Amino acid sequence: MNIGIDMGGTSAKVALVNDRNRIVDVTSVPTGLKSSPPELAKRLAAAVKKLAGRHVRRIGVGVAGDIDSHHGIVRISPNLGWKRVPLKMLLQRATGNSVAVENDANVAAWGIYKTETPSSVKSLIAITLGTGVGGGIVIDGQLHRGATGSAGEIGHMVLDPKGRLCNCGMRGCLETCAGGTHLSAIACEALKKGAKSRLQKIYKANPQAITPKVLTEAARAGDRLAQSLWENAGRALGRAVGDLIYVINPERIVFTGGVAQAGSLLFKPLQLELSRRPFKTPIRVVSIAVAKNPAHIGVLGAALL
Amino acid sequence: MNIGIDMGGTSAKVALVNDRNRIVDVTSVPTGLKSSPPELAKRLAAAVKKLAGRHVRRIGVGVAGDIDSHHGIVRISPNLGWKRVPLKMLLQRATGNSVAVENDANVAAWGIYKTETPSSVKSLIAITLGTGVGGGIVIDGQLHRGATGSAGEIGHMVLDPKGRLCNCGMRGCLETCAGGTHLSAIACEALKKGAKSRLQKIYKANPQAITPKVLTEAARAGDRLAQSLWENAGRALGRAVGDLIYVINPERIVFTGGVAQAGSLLFKPLQLELSRRPFKTPIRVVSIAVAKNPAHIGVLGAALL
Repeated sequence: MNIGIDMGGTSAKVALVNDRNRIVDVTSVPTGLKSSPPELAKRLAAAVKKLAGRHVRRIGVGVAGDIDSHHGIVRISPNLGWKRVPLKMLLQRATGNSVAVENDANVAAWGIYKTETPSSVKSLIAITLGTGVGGGIVIDGQLHRGATGSAGEIGHMVLDPKGRLCNCGMRGCLETCAGGTHLSAIACEALKKGAKSRLQKIYKANPQAITPKVLTEAARAGDRLAQSLWENAGRALGRAVGDLIYVINPERIVFTGGVAQAGSLLFKPLQLELSRRPFKTPIRVVSIAVAKNPAHIGVLGAALL
Repeated sequence: MNIGIDMGGTSAKVALVNDRNRIVDVTSVPTGLKSSPPELAKRLAAAVKKLAGRHVRRIGVGVAGDIDSHHGIVRISPNLGWKRVPLKMLLQRATGNSVAVENDANVAAWGIYKTETPSSVKSLIAITLGTGVGGGIVIDGQLHRGATGSAGEIGHMVLDPKGRLCNCGMRGCLETCAGGTHLSAIACEALKKGAKSRLQKIYKANPQAITPKVLTEAARAGDRLAQSLWENAGRALGRAVGDLIYVINPERIVFTGGVAQAGSLLFKPLQLELSRRPFKTPIRVVSIAVAKNPAHIGVLGAALL
């Protein structure tokens, strides 16, 4: 039995995973900016003990941010408000188990690779479309971490230097075109300007209700504003994916995260962009899919690190 | 002793390389669109025999184009006018030696990795700035070929969908911003429109004399047109390199090819672009260099395949 931990900004999901890669039991631990890392490590250790008693082999943790997975140090995690936290050491001390710490997008890629991918496939790129956009890369059956564990930072590829301002400070990152927060903001800006849309009513009642899910429903119901928004997001994503295919030439690309649930609204324009690329060999070979088990891929991937 | 062959559109360079990775002897064989692949294989075999007698272990060949290195098949090589040529088989039959065939940019990356890179470095991206722009990637000390041997197609990353028309049919590929042919064309277009520049005289005498080398000399001598051209090329290259660093997180990036000889004209704006990137961890770790032995890296890399 292994433990997978998916550290979020408000809570950590802790799952007990058996040797068949099935989740046996799951619990959650509050995180938040107020808890110190050693305190949180103790709370996590208590949750692990409650879940599994002494039958734990390994603990894997996925954390959003800049992670030194080699030393198990969280260099920066804006969600948790952490800088230079030796999470691996803290958790090993608190639990007595061996611990691996990894960037959450890498964890998702590893989970998808180990639990949803035919064993004949040796390379994939997993793209997490959540509030932001992340990526993880598997090459030759190994997680490609890069020189500093920073590889796969797909969301901040610059698609348009004159584009929208990204949280990172640059303009026109992929995340500003296909991240959930930006998609909502783009829609709200258009609605504020009076764009004709069935979303106006929802927007006027509560702008925060303009979520990617609501945008998906509106587009499926025929709303033009929502449709053109997904069209633009899919095309931008298609451009970035086209570049990634040219550079990495993977066998598979798998999307996960809430925004990926828009399905064909996003993937039809994406495929159209890909079909325009003239070098067909790498485009034809790649299969594009959506993760089957997005809700649990974080803890599963972490447990399998 | 190994043989390295660098197949160009007009001639193939054939080199005998010793076990210390030094070129012992070199010759050339005409290629061109008129010779059939079996004929050319025979001519290459004769050159190999003349160079080395029977003392050859392996032959490696670098070919520009879409190469199936697994089977040693040239899928498409526009330079040679080839489609689906089983070059490995033809050369093995003609020489009796074991033969490896690889894309020329991959060969350059391998040559740089094996002959110019400290053994502590395990990952690099080699970017060939010639008439076009190519790339080769080494990860964990291995050439990263990708699912179909197409990886590293850096020159056709799309930087601006509304940009210059590329030979490939897309617009705004990196190659249209930093490839030699396009740099010359951009300069000629400005000169045709009457741009104030010391290059006007050369252009009026012979537009084909506006080469990247001439543009480098003009910029170094203070010509504003040439300087702004290199500035733009360097910034575009910096954007693409920034994306590559975020995605692959390599230890080293090495430039080779004629256009790379522009030196700081190109690399100063490139570094400026990189310094703007907010995620410092992968940017700080990467060292950027120019190949020391660009003239021979093709045959050296091929001999070491």
